[in-house]
Amino acid sequence: MPVSEHRYRRRVQFADTDSAGVVHFSWIVKYMEEAEHALWREAGLTISPADGVVGYPRVALSVDFSAPLHFEDEFEVHVRVEAISRRTIRYAHTIRRGDTVIATGTMTAACVRKTPAPMRAIEIPAEVLRNLSPHIDA
Amino acid sequence: MPVSEHRYRRRVQFADTDSAGVVHFSWIVKYMEEAEHALWREAGLTISPADGVVGYPRVALSVDFSAPLHFEDEFEVHVRVEAISRRTIRYAHTIRRGDTVIATGTMTAACVRKTPAPMRAIEIPAEVLRNLSPHIDA
Amino acid sequence: MPVSEHRYRRRVQFADTDSAGVVHFSWIVKYMEEAEHALWREAGLTISPADGVVGYPRVALSVDFSAPLHFEDEFEVHVRVEAISRRTIRYAHTIRRGDTVIATGTMTAACVRKTPAPMRAIEIPAEVLRNLSPHIDA
Amino acid sequence: MPVSEHRYRRRVQFADTDSAGVVHFSWIVKYMEEAEHALWREAGLTISPADGVVGYPRVALSVDFSAPLHFEDEFEVHVRVEAISRRTIRYAHTIRRGDTVIATGTMTAACVRKTPAPMRAIEIPAEVLRNLSPHIDA
Repeated sequence: MPVSEHRYRRRVQFADTDSAGVVHFSWIVKYMEEAEHALWREAGLTISPADGVVGYPRVALSVDFSAPLHFEDEFEVHVRVEAISRRTIRYAHTIRRGDTVIATGTMTAACVRKTPAPMRAIEIPAEVLRNLSPHIDA
Repeated sequence: MPVSEHRYRRRVQFADTDSAGVVHFSWIVKYMEEAEHALWREAGLTISPADGVVGYPRVALSVDFSAPLHFEDEFEVHVRVEAISRRTIRYAHTIRRGDTVIATGTMTAACVRKTPAPMRAIEIPAEVLRNLSPHIDA
Repeated sequence: MPVSEHRYRRRVQFADTDSAGVVHFSWIVKYMEEAEHALWREAGLTISPADGVVGYPRVALSVDFSAPLHFEDEFEVHVRVEAISRRTIRYAHTIRRGDTVIATGTMTAACVRKTPAPMRAIEIPAEVLRNLSPHIDA
Repeated sequence: MPVSEHRYRRRVQFADTDSAGVVHFSWIVKYMEEAEHALWREAGLTISPADGVVGYPRVALSVDFSAPLHFEDEFEVHVRVEAISRRTIRYAHTIRRGDTVIATGTMTAACVRKTPAPMRAIEIPAEVLRNLSPHIDA
């Protein structure tokens, strides 16, 4: 379903670049996370509620970089939920500037209870599953 | 007293640079904070205890930038406690690469109680005053 | 003149926060720079042309921090050109979330020729002066 | 050969953490790159020579995150060259705090000529191959 994908628009800021003249690769993974959080907001959710009890740390990340981004480039991150298990969410991302693919990647987050320490894996809350389900890849 | 100054050594990492080929200025202020925290460790303290109750947010910052730093440069941040009031600590910093002054600045942190929210200013704990006092500028 | 001020809107991203639960102060100075670059774009300029010859490194920075920002907060950076000399531009910034002032600051950038190395101060190009002049504080 | 692995020691800085109270995952990938550059220095090389002609952008990255790092933690990044082809270098990383594995990952960099633009893949210079070869995993 086309509705399943969220498109996040962003412009490259100067501090995102490095002395090779392009966006540093650590920013590409931050752009992927920014798009994930925008998808949650579109779904009526926040990934980091103010009570600080439940969180979604990353457990896996994989990225292929195919073209550079430069200062002030406008680009889009397309993100969709590729799979949800009881305790993890896997996203698939494509970063594009116009027709050029900048990077593709996947990122898996786990649901954890942060307090009391130490944090431990828990099941994803029902409300989160319900609101993210329209974004699951068919 | 010469003992009052802490010298923090650091090397420029690639991600600290920007597409002008030099260290981005936001990293200069991060280097200043890294040196402050190293001074606290030297004084037998941590600026962010694990219990999360007391914190030291910045309330003022002033920096003059005089020369650039480049990838892999080794440099020193000289930091000293310029003044302590009951609720604030003001540091003075000089960043040097060899004989070249890169930047000079001051930074003021306030002591706050973070929980329960909202955070509010409190007096600096006696142990902190005692341990930082050898670092106060004569 | 009210037209002299540029308003830059932004949302706090997760990676902008620190373990005190608020936006790290180094991000406040990055937000100030992002607003400056948005002002240049509004003026039909880019602060970092692709030819890489002329640049605008920061020579001075001063910030007062008055309230914290949190994850997903929406805020505005109001930036205006406070003064232009032949070789430097001084900006004044106010960061606000609704009616709350988060920080106020000033930042001074110098015009330099970056190549051939070493960089040296030059006069601000006429086109830049002309396009920024409507943003100069009356 | 034991000599093939470089061990890079680092301490978590406050700005590396996020409001979940742990090191943000984008910093884990930056630590991996810092260790790579330390390995190059140990091999008598710099990954970003000042002439700016040749560079080593990342083409692939994969990380599994298994435990969090906290403010002021001391940790090690173990990095080795897993494979070198004529145009690419693949590294394998393990990040440890004492006996705890924090993350494991691989990162592939390509050799490119950056000027004249656009950048294009070239063969890795002979000196680089020669100096990195003692670090290649047997």
